[in-house]
Amino acid sequence: MSSKKQLHLTAFMRPVSLHTGAWRYPGSYPDANFNLKHLMSFIQALEAAKFDAFFMADHLAVLNMPVEALKRSHTVTSFEPFTLLSALSQVTSRIGLAATASTTYDEPYHIARRFASLDHLSDGRAAWNIVTTGNPESSKNFGLDEHVQHSERYKRAREFYDVVTGLWDSFADDAFVRDAETGVYVDPEKIHTLNHKGDDLKVKGPLNIARPVQGWPVIVQAGQSEPGRQLAAETAEAVFCSPKDIDAGQALYADIKGRAKAAGRNPEHIKILPAAMILVADTVEEAQQKRLKLDSLVHYDSAISSLSISLGTDASKFDPDGSLPSEDELPATNASHTSRASVIALAKSEGLTVRQLAGRYGGYAGLAFVGTAESIADEMERWLDADAADGFTVTFPFLPEGLEAVTQKLVPELQRRGVFRTEYEGSTLREHLGLPRPVNRFFENAEHAQNGELKTVTNGNVKSANNAKRKLKSEGSIQESRRSSRRRV
Amino acid sequence: MSSKKQLHLTAFMRPVSLHTGAWRYPGSYPDANFNLKHLMSFIQALEAAKFDAFFMADHLAVLNMPVEALKRSHTVTSFEPFTLLSALSQVTSRIGLAATASTTYDEPYHIARRFASLDHLSDGRAAWNIVTTGNPESSKNFGLDEHVQHSERYKRAREFYDVVTGLWDSFADDAFVRDAETGVYVDPEKIHTLNHKGDDLKVKGPLNIARPVQGWPVIVQAGQSEPGRQLAAETAEAVFCSPKDIDAGQALYADIKGRAKAAGRNPEHIKILPAAMILVADTVEEAQQKRLKLDSLVHYDSAISSLSISLGTDASKFDPDGSLPSEDELPATNASHTSRASVIALAKSEGLTVRQLAGRYGGYAGLAFVGTAESIADEMERWLDADAADGFTVTFPFLPEGLEAVTQKLVPELQRRGVFRTEYEGSTLREHLGLPRPVNRFFENAEHAQNGELKTVTNGNVKSANNAKRKLKSEGSIQESRRSSRRRV
Repeated sequence: MSSKKQLHLTAFMRPVSLHTGAWRYPGSYPDANFNLKHLMSFIQALEAAKFDAFFMADHLAVLNMPVEALKRSHTVTSFEPFTLLSALSQVTSRIGLAATASTTYDEPYHIARRFASLDHLSDGRAAWNIVTTGNPESSKNFGLDEHVQHSERYKRAREFYDVVTGLWDSFADDAFVRDAETGVYVDPEKIHTLNHKGDDLKVKGPLNIARPVQGWPVIVQAGQSEPGRQLAAETAEAVFCSPKDIDAGQALYADIKGRAKAAGRNPEHIKILPAAMILVADTVEEAQQKRLKLDSLVHYDSAISSLSISLGTDASKFDPDGSLPSEDELPATNASHTSRASVIALAKSEGLTVRQLAGRYGGYAGLAFVGTAESIADEMERWLDADAADGFTVTFPFLPEGLEAVTQKLVPELQRRGVFRTEYEGSTLREHLGLPRPVNRFFENAEHAQNGELKTVTNGNVKSANNAKRKLKSEGSIQESRRSSRRRV
Repeated sequence: MSSKKQLHLTAFMRPVSLHTGAWRYPGSYPDANFNLKHLMSFIQALEAAKFDAFFMADHLAVLNMPVEALKRSHTVTSFEPFTLLSALSQVTSRIGLAATASTTYDEPYHIARRFASLDHLSDGRAAWNIVTTGNPESSKNFGLDEHVQHSERYKRAREFYDVVTGLWDSFADDAFVRDAETGVYVDPEKIHTLNHKGDDLKVKGPLNIARPVQGWPVIVQAGQSEPGRQLAAETAEAVFCSPKDIDAGQALYADIKGRAKAAGRNPEHIKILPAAMILVADTVEEAQQKRLKLDSLVHYDSAISSLSISLGTDASKFDPDGSLPSEDELPATNASHTSRASVIALAKSEGLTVRQLAGRYGGYAGLAFVGTAESIADEMERWLDADAADGFTVTFPFLPEGLEAVTQKLVPELQRRGVFRTEYEGSTLREHLGLPRPVNRFFENAEHAQNGELKTVTNGNVKSANNAKRKLKSEGSIQESRRSSRRRV
């Protein structure tokens, strides 16, 4: 392995792409939302390129949009992440599988169980993207009239994490004896009943699935708000964030690593992976042209409303093919001046018309690297060297072409420079990311596992684990040991 | 196809088998609870034998057992069904995939979405086994102190079914236009917002996934209580039941089909599939010997407590290798006399010792067909001809041997007799079971779809659908049409 700091790459996917215009791009698969074959080809290409993980974005609702935008949106449907990633686990063998799951609208027992199951099915490749679900429409699909408040969501998320990781630790790694001779299947001393009772959650346990292959699936977190950063610092092992440029990236990197250190964690064990749309072509100009073409495929009716929001004024009154009026000519606004200023700056720096600007804001307005393999590799190395990133959460402008350009042009360039692996060295996602296997809080010696060793120190001689441990107790009933088919369901 | 009434066969699976002693049986895979390879080989063998479906049993807790039983139980862990079946969907192409999901401890939006996703991933092979979760331990893993009452569970289940099926109907089958030229992806007129507000559930919709391939995944139901039978009659398309013999099977069959008819349904569209453990060998005596061996592998410590429950008295006081005391000699009991009487009858008819009886009750005491391919095929035909069954929910005594005996000995015999398919005729589970594709209540003409046609009658000229329909409305906000990576998670 190269002695250079290594880049990590995850692919942040929506089936048709994150960009609103992508389904109209030549060669795209507009039916990828419910056509598994396309997604299989994407993940296999990413695995061949040695990506760390395939990351499935998710929503718990059809987003609230005006009909004009809705009818043009390929984001209206998608596969559900657990079912999708479980299916994809069978056509891949190394790449990590990150699913988004909500702490606000789901139950920790279900979440713990599904991720543990995915981790077993994939031989240790699962990751949990903890989200608190920012989209207010979701609440209405789960019995509520109003969205749960931001601070409440983050408070519950923190407790939810404790419960889920506690459930994952229900069984010691060596709990299963399976001695056919003596008839002992499992050692009851190596099963822990959580008995959690907190402010928001009450969960008894134990989980009814063996400890995940990775100990715990990798924890991913995305929030950039104050409570979001703190949650990331305390819990996340990979952070998916959206700084607008390298300076913002550097600040965020330092902030989250600093918070992690303050929380008593090793900052090396939290990887900061800014999201970036990557558009690679053979020349910078060609890449820029492709981007303009892509943005032009966002229908003007929905694009202009996105621009209007960013400007804080109705942009449909401007000449689509003219340039943006100057700041003095724009009507006054109560909306964010930072947002307006960045629109104006962008229009100026790239010389965009109102229509092009609208396409940008209606399509994808986040951090983007648009250029050649060399120019983008330079940019990525700059971020790496500036401690602004440990790698990137890559989004593709359009599929499959945009993905193929990354895997066939950019990745070989990164490999040539010695900053990205040419082969997977381990088999689990933790190993790809250089993360230790978490200790089992109930059955392992914390000092022992700090350096990521896999061996279990069993209970008995470990004070802290011993104190925390409560044994699974018989509850006096033998009812459930009867076998009847009805009880099996 | 033969003109004889056709048998349907589904496999009711726990990874290691349903029988408590099975993990100790020679050749078994005691680690199948988290070793996918074994389950892949099982489902592939079942598909080669043209089984209708692979049915995954489930629990939402580690069952409450005394430590003596717990430590001997391979049921303590299992894969989670959605993740498991999604993975298995990729190594099979025809066999149905039935997952158990609880209406008591889950949310209809999640359930609707996961089954729709599984149905898309598997090209129309999903089935939902609706359960209300009978195991009281589960409640404690979902924030409750007490188990939800039986009648409340069934009331919620009925409403839950209405919501889930309503969410599956969110999109007309032809809602997706995907016209790259005009930029129209979906027709908003063909999206329905459910706006359900009932006693137990409030769910807005629409679901964020296209209508399942099968319209709705097949509905399976297992309850045999009064409300369980009624729920089955109103909703189920396949009923998994546990009659103790052919007479009980006939009565249950007539009762559920009668209730379905009274509820306005076509009784042909509800298949009654009694559960039976099937043990096939080359001679009846060999099969019986295998069963005795299997029962003997249930450890006496846990077996005897099962027998004690069935007898309503402590059976550990009897001589394990003697015969059961006569009814007069047994202490009086407040427990079920029916249960005691059936134990006594069994001991007599098979001449079992106390130890053998305990193994039976500790292992699997439900309906079993133990014999040769011919004797079991005879028995199955008897049930079919007596209108006691439309097929069977098969459980295997031990794996893989017990499964191989069924697929290699019994199935060819059934095929030779012309009562079981030699090839799949359709591609979806509905087609295997001879069930129609449900009409979309919001977008299709009910009369049209009654005979199972797949074509959609679009809205506009259909009065009933039109009346029920409420269009997705814009809610005035264009916020969500902005593209920012944070909103994607």
